[in-house]
Amino acid sequence: MTIHIAVDIGGTRMRAASYPIDSLIPKASNRIKTRKKNSTSIERLEQLIESVWPEDDDVSAIGIAVPGPVNTAKGIIEKAPNIPELSGLQVGRIMQDIFNVPTFLGNDANFAALGEWKFGAGRGHHYVVYLTISTGIGSGVIINDQLFTGATGFASELGHTLIDPSGPICSCGVCGHLEALASGTAISKWVTEQILSGAETNIVFDSNSDEPIPGNIIADAAKEGDALAIQVFERAGHFLGMAIADFLHIFNPTIIVLGGGVSQSYSLFSEVLYESMQSHVMAPEFLDNITIELAQLGDDVGLMGALAYAREMTASIPDE
Amino acid sequence: MTIHIAVDIGGTRMRAASYPIDSLIPKASNRIKTRKKNSTSIERLEQLIESVWPEDDDVSAIGIAVPGPVNTAKGIIEKAPNIPELSGLQVGRIMQDIFNVPTFLGNDANFAALGEWKFGAGRGHHYVVYLTISTGIGSGVIINDQLFTGATGFASELGHTLIDPSGPICSCGVCGHLEALASGTAISKWVTEQILSGAETNIVFDSNSDEPIPGNIIADAAKEGDALAIQVFERAGHFLGMAIADFLHIFNPTIIVLGGGVSQSYSLFSEVLYESMQSHVMAPEFLDNITIELAQLGDDVGLMGALAYAREMTASIPDE
Repeated sequence: MTIHIAVDIGGTRMRAASYPIDSLIPKASNRIKTRKKNSTSIERLEQLIESVWPEDDDVSAIGIAVPGPVNTAKGIIEKAPNIPELSGLQVGRIMQDIFNVPTFLGNDANFAALGEWKFGAGRGHHYVVYLTISTGIGSGVIINDQLFTGATGFASELGHTLIDPSGPICSCGVCGHLEALASGTAISKWVTEQILSGAETNIVFDSNSDEPIPGNIIADAAKEGDALAIQVFERAGHFLGMAIADFLHIFNPTIIVLGGGVSQSYSLFSEVLYESMQSHVMAPEFLDNITIELAQLGDDVGLMGALAYAREMTASIPDE
Repeated sequence: MTIHIAVDIGGTRMRAASYPIDSLIPKASNRIKTRKKNSTSIERLEQLIESVWPEDDDVSAIGIAVPGPVNTAKGIIEKAPNIPELSGLQVGRIMQDIFNVPTFLGNDANFAALGEWKFGAGRGHHYVVYLTISTGIGSGVIINDQLFTGATGFASELGHTLIDPSGPICSCGVCGHLEALASGTAISKWVTEQILSGAETNIVFDSNSDEPIPGNIIADAAKEGDALAIQVFERAGHFLGMAIADFLHIFNPTIIVLGGGVSQSYSLFSEVLYESMQSHVMAPEFLDNITIELAQLGDDVGLMGALAYAREMTASIPDE
């Protein structure tokens, strides 16, 4: 039997699983910490893949989702903010040399888009915009049944779309990007600022702590009716609606898929998001047939995407 | 010999030309007014195509560029602001029934992008973003050697990308789109406002006239050193640079092609545009290998695009 191995490398953990060609149920799976004393992330990645390698079956390909932009032209991770030692490395080529099977590298948000399209909320659609809203805002786009990565692999960085040039500074250094206005980090920062400015709230805030207020604390407060907590989610929804109107003008998709931690509080901001999207769209035709859906694959989305990519890439490689 | 007929329908004039399969030099071409008393635009379009129809050769296909969004799913012009009688019509189907050859309809800016990619500034590139900056801002995008039109034909309306929500109102009714900040109309409006607010300038302005100040008057003043005229082009360049940074994040192209009347004054704002693009890009990698070029096909761009599309579509239709 032919097996594909999918790997999802995160800042704190990396996961791998081996899948039979006709199944989404892994034959084997494993999860380890990304970093450990006395071993490199590359060594740990090798061990992880080895741990799910099938004894009796052939492996067709390995797909690896990585947290950072992948230069597809050079086959390297351009930047891995959470795992600096991987930056600039040809991780795919290194694993291919070790295991002697085709190995495909991709950005985790791009692979997640592919996973949601193939196996999740985007099934049956041909044009999909996927946003994962958590610490930052990642994204991936399916165009005409293909993952869109642009000329060198950097396309569809939709979290870094300008929404308001007078807005707060983004993780990338530019002011007013969507990520700086509607990510989990942005939500936490805005609440902190409001509390420090004297806003009333039931959210407990330790002004001596350097830790941001956790998103679930704010979400819980909103569900209990806390006005400030409700306001910050609606604020995020407002900016997301503006951005999604832009994405409709740009990509003319039939579905927007929302994933990531913040999307778990979607009911707190869906109404404002829709209103904002409708009032920012250039013509009502752009709203025809569009649906906004929550992602379905949860924490497995990176693995599922890496699997989808590995399967797709080897479907086009003829057997010897 | 096989002939393709290309048509470009504009608000005031429509043009057509017939091209041998291996040439960009028309066998016949013609230009007439779009509207005339006692005849419909459809009748005039039929007469125009007839006037370039070859006597002895076969026609493989007709390509028609129209000034408005084309719903490719339904095959209709969704809206033709300058030729309302065409709105909602299946112009392609109507001509196909009259002339009995495959007829392909497309948005003029999309076709222009295709023309510049096939025959103009974008040759050799696989990922192209084309902007035509004139009264409004139209655009088209080539992705992986294909014209990108989205799920229903409305994609890549880049003139309606949000740049500053506190900016002026756009032709579509939404505030702060690129078109409202950097089109010819926006340039003229801003200069008018500044003059009415007492700004000093050598630009002659008739406050009794309802006509906007023509762009070439402002461009001439800028070339003669008029501070206000220089400022308005740099202002447009600033916003274009912000938008292009977004387009790099979104499409990761290798070339930006600038066409339309305002781009003829590119030397007045190219420096500011570059600075603005560089300071608004999320990471320097997005600037690798990117070039900004002026469009090369001038007024023929719509015809050339319609020709390219007709040729491309019939290349995939097998001969009977």
